[in-house]
Amino acid sequence: MTNKSMTLEEAFEMTKGEVDRMLHAAPSLIRVYTSHLAKAFGKLLRAKAVLVCAMDENGQVHEDAVYFASAIEVLHLATLVHDDIMDDADLRRGIETIQKKFGKRTAVICGDYLLSAALKQLQRPEDRSKYDSLQIPAYVEQICMGELRQNVNNRNYDLNLFRYLSIINGKTAALFEASYFAGAIVHETDEKRLQLFRKVGRYTGVIFQLTDDCIDYEVEESVALKDVQSDFEQGVITLPVIFTFWKKPELKEQAKAGKLLPGEVIQAVKNSDGVGYTKKTAKRYYEKAMAALELLELPEVQKQYLVEILDKSYYGLKGKVLAAK
Amino acid sequence: MTNKSMTLEEAFEMTKGEVDRMLHAAPSLIRVYTSHLAKAFGKLLRAKAVLVCAMDENGQVHEDAVYFASAIEVLHLATLVHDDIMDDADLRRGIETIQKKFGKRTAVICGDYLLSAALKQLQRPEDRSKYDSLQIPAYVEQICMGELRQNVNNRNYDLNLFRYLSIINGKTAALFEASYFAGAIVHETDEKRLQLFRKVGRYTGVIFQLTDDCIDYEVEESVALKDVQSDFEQGVITLPVIFTFWKKPELKEQAKAGKLLPGEVIQAVKNSDGVGYTKKTAKRYYEKAMAALELLELPEVQKQYLVEILDKSYYGLKGKVLAAK
Repeated sequence: MTNKSMTLEEAFEMTKGEVDRMLHAAPSLIRVYTSHLAKAFGKLLRAKAVLVCAMDENGQVHEDAVYFASAIEVLHLATLVHDDIMDDADLRRGIETIQKKFGKRTAVICGDYLLSAALKQLQRPEDRSKYDSLQIPAYVEQICMGELRQNVNNRNYDLNLFRYLSIINGKTAALFEASYFAGAIVHETDEKRLQLFRKVGRYTGVIFQLTDDCIDYEVEESVALKDVQSDFEQGVITLPVIFTFWKKPELKEQAKAGKLLPGEVIQAVKNSDGVGYTKKTAKRYYEKAMAALELLELPEVQKQYLVEILDKSYYGLKGKVLAAK
Repeated sequence: MTNKSMTLEEAFEMTKGEVDRMLHAAPSLIRVYTSHLAKAFGKLLRAKAVLVCAMDENGQVHEDAVYFASAIEVLHLATLVHDDIMDDADLRRGIETIQKKFGKRTAVICGDYLLSAALKQLQRPEDRSKYDSLQIPAYVEQICMGELRQNVNNRNYDLNLFRYLSIINGKTAALFEASYFAGAIVHETDEKRLQLFRKVGRYTGVIFQLTDDCIDYEVEESVALKDVQSDFEQGVITLPVIFTFWKKPELKEQAKAGKLLPGEVIQAVKNSDGVGYTKKTAKRYYEKAMAALELLELPEVQKQYLVEILDKSYYGLKGKVLAAK
């Protein structure tokens, strides 16, 4: 095993190389689309989570984690490509979306291709029997269910916290959980510890989405690098609005009557501090994640990396300082 | 192993039950869509192929083949749901398509959900290490490439036989090959024999698509149970037209100038016997499939079942008698 292990930095470089290869070494016909996606690499937060969770007692990361990390990033890309069809989105990570640039038909196949490429990559480890319990297709099912729930609840101004959480659990937290699970299972066999890693991942994902939903009501388009202040216009009801409607039921009635303008919603969310409430909700998940993390009694370095990912998810694009109250 | 084996008939019933379960036992939110699909079960030709290829020397079929057969049928359904988005199709197997009935957004997720459900089902066999070489995601990649090639060649009136074959190899023959492979690998370990099974599957798939492409120029809508005489209108260039354009280059020029009406194309295909030429091409693949089948020296019963599938692919909806010349 040792000869296939490496430092975290090496593993991260190798992961970037693998993602790059999957996008640039695709058959020529599809390469034009996948290369377009490669122009705007994300922060590879999920890949980092896989690799950090895979660190052994010597801080080394086995090659298998690199395959899982790159597979999960490409799987994530696949879901984004299909998401952008659903949301009719024009921009993603600062570049034009596939659906906008090449059309919805191409985006459908392109997402399917990336999904298959990711699942193929998951088969790279030599001893796959070790990873039988890592059921990535089951997580993809959860992602679909989350997307579908969001779709069904489009313009549902009665959406409540419980249902909202079940949407973001699927559409975002499931893949985070999968990432932590995929990393941990590379060197961990204890069922209870695996369960704790999954929990940390799940909570981190919920926090990530809560923060992302705040961005829509906080920052300028140039900072977010995607269409902002568009959730409400798209009919996507998120926690800042759910809270605002709870505080001001008359606004909800106005929305139902189609008489609430996007600009008014943004102002109302500001007035009721819907973002503050959402951040408080995120904070509760942060504490749950930290509690699970403590129980794992990880080496300090590994723990710090996981706290860093948690912080990035919690503080979002604004960074730690700006967000601190 | 024996206690998990059954007759071909039992295996087929169990497969239908599994497909039904996957569609009807989906989470409630998605069940409305998947149940809609269950209304129009296909002929389960691919599932039959899996089960027949999996027959052992006593004619028994192991349970694992049932998981593979049901997974491949649901995978096939997933590709149809996404196909119908690409083709803007209204009818499929006599019922309204998901994209028509519930919208393109729903069809995108529904296809993704079915794809994950299929891949999850592939993990059902207990001893999965036996099936390491069965790389279904790689076949899904091939299907995507076929669809993409078809998309890129939309209204490409210069499409030639070679490129046309590479399209149908991806969009149809890849999944047939996967079916034969998935069945054979359940009891077969010899690499050369597995290769022969794959060949029979590949050729059968090419024949199936060639016959399907003829239907567009042959039968009435009420018989085909899907939109017919629509390939050309949709810009999908198939062999009957490729041949007709080769015989009558002036028609190709007319098409390029946008001056060829669908009705005129159908008449021209009739006059040049483009369907006859396509059938002759299918016949060559039939002979190749039979040659590979002979080399396998299968028990007579098993061989007859595979010839039956070959015949169904070759004669299509019209049945053996009508098609015989």
